[in-house]
Amino acid sequence: MLGLGLIGGSIMRAAKAAGREVFGYNRSVEGAHAAVADGFDASTDLTDTLTRAADSDALIVLAVPMPALPGLLAHVRDVAPNCPLTDVTSVKTAVLREIDAAGLLHRFVGGHPMAGTADSGWAAGYAGLFTRAPWVVSVDDHVDPEVWTLVMTLALDCGALVVPAKSDEHDAAAAAISHLPHLLAEALAVAAGEVPLAFALAAGSFRDGTRVAGTAPDLVRAMCEGNCTQLLPAVDRVIELLSRARDSLASHNSLAELVDAGHAARTRYDSFPRSDIFTVVIGAENWREELAAAGRAGGVIRSALPSLDSRR
Amino acid sequence: MLGLGLIGGSIMRAAKAAGREVFGYNRSVEGAHAAVADGFDASTDLTDTLTRAADSDALIVLAVPMPALPGLLAHVRDVAPNCPLTDVTSVKTAVLREIDAAGLLHRFVGGHPMAGTADSGWAAGYAGLFTRAPWVVSVDDHVDPEVWTLVMTLALDCGALVVPAKSDEHDAAAAAISHLPHLLAEALAVAAGEVPLAFALAAGSFRDGTRVAGTAPDLVRAMCEGNCTQLLPAVDRVIELLSRARDSLASHNSLAELVDAGHAARTRYDSFPRSDIFTVVIGAENWREELAAAGRAGGVIRSALPSLDSRR
Repeated sequence: MLGLGLIGGSIMRAAKAAGREVFGYNRSVEGAHAAVADGFDASTDLTDTLTRAADSDALIVLAVPMPALPGLLAHVRDVAPNCPLTDVTSVKTAVLREIDAAGLLHRFVGGHPMAGTADSGWAAGYAGLFTRAPWVVSVDDHVDPEVWTLVMTLALDCGALVVPAKSDEHDAAAAAISHLPHLLAEALAVAAGEVPLAFALAAGSFRDGTRVAGTAPDLVRAMCEGNCTQLLPAVDRVIELLSRARDSLASHNSLAELVDAGHAARTRYDSFPRSDIFTVVIGAENWREELAAAGRAGGVIRSALPSLDSRR
Repeated sequence: MLGLGLIGGSIMRAAKAAGREVFGYNRSVEGAHAAVADGFDASTDLTDTLTRAADSDALIVLAVPMPALPGLLAHVRDVAPNCPLTDVTSVKTAVLREIDAAGLLHRFVGGHPMAGTADSGWAAGYAGLFTRAPWVVSVDDHVDPEVWTLVMTLALDCGALVVPAKSDEHDAAAAAISHLPHLLAEALAVAAGEVPLAFALAAGSFRDGTRVAGTAPDLVRAMCEGNCTQLLPAVDRVIELLSRARDSLASHNSLAELVDAGHAARTRYDSFPRSDIFTVVIGAENWREELAAAGRAGGVIRSALPSLDSRR
């Protein structure tokens, strides 16, 4: 585990609870000491940690914020270039670019556990954070079946539901369900803040609609700006929908189109079917495309899929 | 009580629990019977109910949906034209227009308890629905001090915090904190529903941001379309904020302006100070303007204000 914050620290706890051997690095002494005090194998010596990883061919998990990634990857390439590698970052295409630039693509399979809390740091983590949460594991064209199996198994050991997805499709979905809601919450908070009496009367729908505007601005900016390519068309689509609705409201006092479509979409979401993926064999012909299609259709992996090797 | 649905039925329970005499009318036999079965004085005979109100100079509470209002007001004018009159509808200017058209303005003071649940009908109501909820009582230029005191006292007896406000300011605030969030939720649900994989990965921020898109479309349309005048500038402002943000994102990959402003506004909301209004005397010079200004500044009435009459 490289990085023992909320996500990294929670994976460390969950993996150990599942009986795995796990050791970690944290840049800050406080975080590493807190992990050690809780009985975990943690260090502030990156070279030492990476040497251990290389010696034991450990799966390296990158659990640092995006801006810290390039520096960390340079060390990984120098000390443990052949270890299997994954990450837990919310934007997948941008990470893929950094991994490629560092020359580490051949052993990399990206990941994104869709879990979090408003808190951060080692102390905020807990082993149950990923229980039944979707954990995206990338099935881009380059991914190696052996590493894919390692990452899938880690996610399952943490109690997550594995959702296979291509990096760009993950990022488009994240723009729609996470980054766009943040921008709408910010805009709603600003607009309401300009109206006298609004805060005096604000209740449930305003509180819900602006809750994520309470997130620290630098975190919101990092994830939204890091997914600029996918976020732009999503914002454009919402502006288009709102503009059509306001024109319809102004010209014949009707919001029928938007309100009916919105209600139908939300209803579809409420009954979105989750199915189990169990027929795909990792490493078989077209396995990546089959997994991506299954994930797109709502499929999740709840127990380890077989791989071609294990069937031989 | 004219109308014994969620709001009307809850006021009936709360008013009776506070020791008041209360009797009601409901159009549907089911609702009226349910109220009677629960020990309340309810009828399906509108003329009879209004005659009782006129004989006892009762405060009439209009608790029917907006479309039912004109028909009901014609009966009130015929049978009980001089009773003090209030309402509990979410849009105040449109109601004021109907009241004026019916020739009932002289004894009318509008109201809006900011409380509700996803359910409706007599069975959904309960006496505690308004406990510590803001209950707007209109202080438009025409309002009569004596009727104002009656409406304030009813709201306080129901456990609410009375927020004095002018009807147009209430509607502008309602557009910003209630109607606009509904439109944003609908637009977000539609936009996300068009992205493959989005529903498969959707979690907290999407669920919160689209929760109110689950509200029945006819209810959303009634309140939004009924507040068209105030909702249009609010939608325009959000479109403007989002358009500027998308241009800034596209041209120099920065969302700083919107995200910082949104976070600041939400933080201001979280620490919005509620103060108590206790120095205004109802009926004294400029009492309406003083109350409107105090409400705008976050003031609430927690216990009955004195009126000029009661001081004499």
